[in-house]
Amino acid sequence: MNDISFGLLGGSFTLRTAREADVSAIVDLLADDDLRSPEESSAPEDLAPYLAAFHAIDRDSAHLLVVVADSVGRVVGTQQLTVLPGLARSGATRLQVEAVRVSADLRGNGLGGEMITWAVEYGRGLGCRLIQLTSDATRNDAHRFYERLGFTPSHVGFKLFL
Amino acid sequence: MNDISFGLLGGSFTLRTAREADVSAIVDLLADDDLRSPEESSAPEDLAPYLAAFHAIDRDSAHLLVVVADSVGRVVGTQQLTVLPGLARSGATRLQVEAVRVSADLRGNGLGGEMITWAVEYGRGLGCRLIQLTSDATRNDAHRFYERLGFTPSHVGFKLFL
Repeated sequence: MNDISFGLLGGSFTLRTAREADVSAIVDLLADDDLRSPEESSAPEDLAPYLAAFHAIDRDSAHLLVVVADSVGRVVGTQQLTVLPGLARSGATRLQVEAVRVSADLRGNGLGGEMITWAVEYGRGLGCRLIQLTSDATRNDAHRFYERLGFTPSHVGFKLFL
Repeated sequence: MNDISFGLLGGSFTLRTAREADVSAIVDLLADDDLRSPEESSAPEDLAPYLAAFHAIDRDSAHLLVVVADSVGRVVGTQQLTVLPGLARSGATRLQVEAVRVSADLRGNGLGGEMITWAVEYGRGLGCRLIQLTSDATRNDAHRFYERLGFTPSHVGFKLFL
């Protein structure tokens, strides 16, 4: 994908494909989350499993790991997009959105909206007919956010840890 | 994957990778659904978009389209599995389950449970640490089914049609 620049809050931001050098900053965004899993301490000591995941994402064109950087290059947002072909709905391709995070100091200012709106256009450009994501049932602010962006909370998301 | 044979209801069933010749039967299973989308008539006239989706699934090893056939080869169940790498949860790989369907005449007899239990073991064998799916909020029977199998309804599933 090409880098996308946009202005917000009087600053300039760049939305682009994540690079290996961004992994540590992405991990920090994932760790700075009230609902983080117990594995995600605020200071992960070993980046190796994250780097392995990064390369698994990076080598398959079905996946796109996105970051948003501010004007000095600090990574302040991330999301992961996956193109999912399927037979349902007349063979409709879906775009799955995972791991949406915005830096705590920038939340509620429209950055997340810019990211999701861009993801919708990205999916449309690839011919996707449906974009889908799940959000923890306790994240009421996130639910309002997705509904404002036109999403419908039509499903229950089930998880099983192995 | 290797074919898996199992007995149920005094009959024998085979769980295997879907082939192109199964597409029409899979479309019939998707169409035989109270919640089917308007595009999915009970008699789709044109298989071309479904075949295109089948080939998109079949050519990427991240995806596995599964069918269950009965002892005379009739396709009576289907599900689609996708391996999703990700940085969250210490770089945990997820298995995403989509488009789970069981033939109406065999529902409530344990066939769906065999399919999902097999999917869990398949994910475990690939090193996945999480298996996830969404179910329409109105499908109370399906919700009880997934909870019996150990899934937690921890998330809200959002969709946006493009």
